[in-house]
Amino acid sequence: MLPAREDLEAIATRAGRLALRHFRHVAPERKADKTLVTAADREVEALLVGELARLLPDAGVIGEEGTTRDTAGAYRLVLDPIDGTAAFVAGLPTWCICIGILEDTRPAAGVVHLPCLGETYSALGGRAWLDGVPLPTLASRPRTVGDRFIVTHARAHARHLITYPGKVRSLGSTAYHVALVARGAADAALLGHAHLWDLVAPGAILESVGGGYEYLHGGRVDLGTLADGVRAPDHVIAGAADGIAAVRPLIRDPA
Amino acid sequence: MLPAREDLEAIATRAGRLALRHFRHVAPERKADKTLVTAADREVEALLVGELARLLPDAGVIGEEGTTRDTAGAYRLVLDPIDGTAAFVAGLPTWCICIGILEDTRPAAGVVHLPCLGETYSALGGRAWLDGVPLPTLASRPRTVGDRFIVTHARAHARHLITYPGKVRSLGSTAYHVALVARGAADAALLGHAHLWDLVAPGAILESVGGGYEYLHGGRVDLGTLADGVRAPDHVIAGAADGIAAVRPLIRDPA
Repeated sequence: MLPAREDLEAIATRAGRLALRHFRHVAPERKADKTLVTAADREVEALLVGELARLLPDAGVIGEEGTTRDTAGAYRLVLDPIDGTAAFVAGLPTWCICIGILEDTRPAAGVVHLPCLGETYSALGGRAWLDGVPLPTLASRPRTVGDRFIVTHARAHARHLITYPGKVRSLGSTAYHVALVARGAADAALLGHAHLWDLVAPGAILESVGGGYEYLHGGRVDLGTLADGVRAPDHVIAGAADGIAAVRPLIRDPA
Repeated sequence: MLPAREDLEAIATRAGRLALRHFRHVAPERKADKTLVTAADREVEALLVGELARLLPDAGVIGEEGTTRDTAGAYRLVLDPIDGTAAFVAGLPTWCICIGILEDTRPAAGVVHLPCLGETYSALGGRAWLDGVPLPTLASRPRTVGDRFIVTHARAHARHLITYPGKVRSLGSTAYHVALVARGAADAALLGHAHLWDLVAPGAILESVGGGYEYLHGGRVDLGTLADGVRAPDHVIAGAADGIAAVRPLIRDPA
């Protein structure tokens, strides 16, 4: 049985407090794939694994910083201790703690907690919340009255020709970008070749409001194919199906 | 004589608390130039004008939301009550309160306060601070150990071909972007055709650490030519001189 949402949120909040103690006081290192890692990533992953093991002792674990545990159970914890480590290292406030739970290959629960912003997005049982307030489905939301925007990964300028007529923002973390779509703020999020741990926690939130992931060049994203930690074979877009359909032709391959 | 830095910061903080009461509870309108405005922008400008008049009764005033007062004195208050109104309307946390003071055409003091992040950048007398801690000059800072990045306005994808080899972020407000350069986090900031009120407060901070503004196609930005509220005639880049020189050739006009 899945834990209570409040228990998952409480663990993410404790992890956030631990990360905040390192924020702006930490030296990064480079991993084999050239991305950054800090002591904060490793300590937060250890905290998450330890605390979640008490709630879901039979679950498998896949953590960005190397924790893996295989079990025969249906549940797998998919953890990104700090999504947006580069933002964290740069002193930007948009990094987040991600706790995802896969049931087989489907996101069954997720928490995305942004300690600097004090925002916590969560999903369980097909419903989603922001700071404990239920999030409406994307289809039921009124059309945005402000400036429309999409969010993209920070190397989109080098990978795509973007002709989207609204604004394009890049705020520093994949899960926050997906959360902005789930909240109805952004039309879509272009995520790059994401990893499983970037996708599960915010994916649970996005699916609970009627959205999902597709590949830029077409096709649904099957999270089961990413369970061994490989990067997604194509750029991933997050959104409602109609939002993805509208934005996809506006993100083209360079000539 | 200029007010004390602490007094300017305290006014920006009070203005931030007023803006936060409206945050996520406000309907925007469109101004004549199609940009957004809310009741929060107008109320914060009124608060700033009223409180600053007690500190600098003889100063002129130029406010984004329409306040103007001409005087014979050397000082002009240049106010952006909410820089990043579109971010504010979208529920993003990166909008800020900007108090700038021009002495003739030179930024003499500035406060950039981000209420959601609890960050306050300030400058006075040729020195700059973040949350009361002095900011080192850009030339004296060690080279960034994390992923290098620039920050751009949210329509850069439609205006430029960007071949910068690092990351490109767009976080939602001009003054925050300049502050990130002044803090040594970003290599440079591409600001678009900015207005005077976007430039003065963060410009005081940036100049205090040895940086400044230039036009994308060359030339220093003379703030005196923008004092009637016109948009800058070219895109503005903020940075240290060497940072601007390195980034400028990587931001090209579309063919």
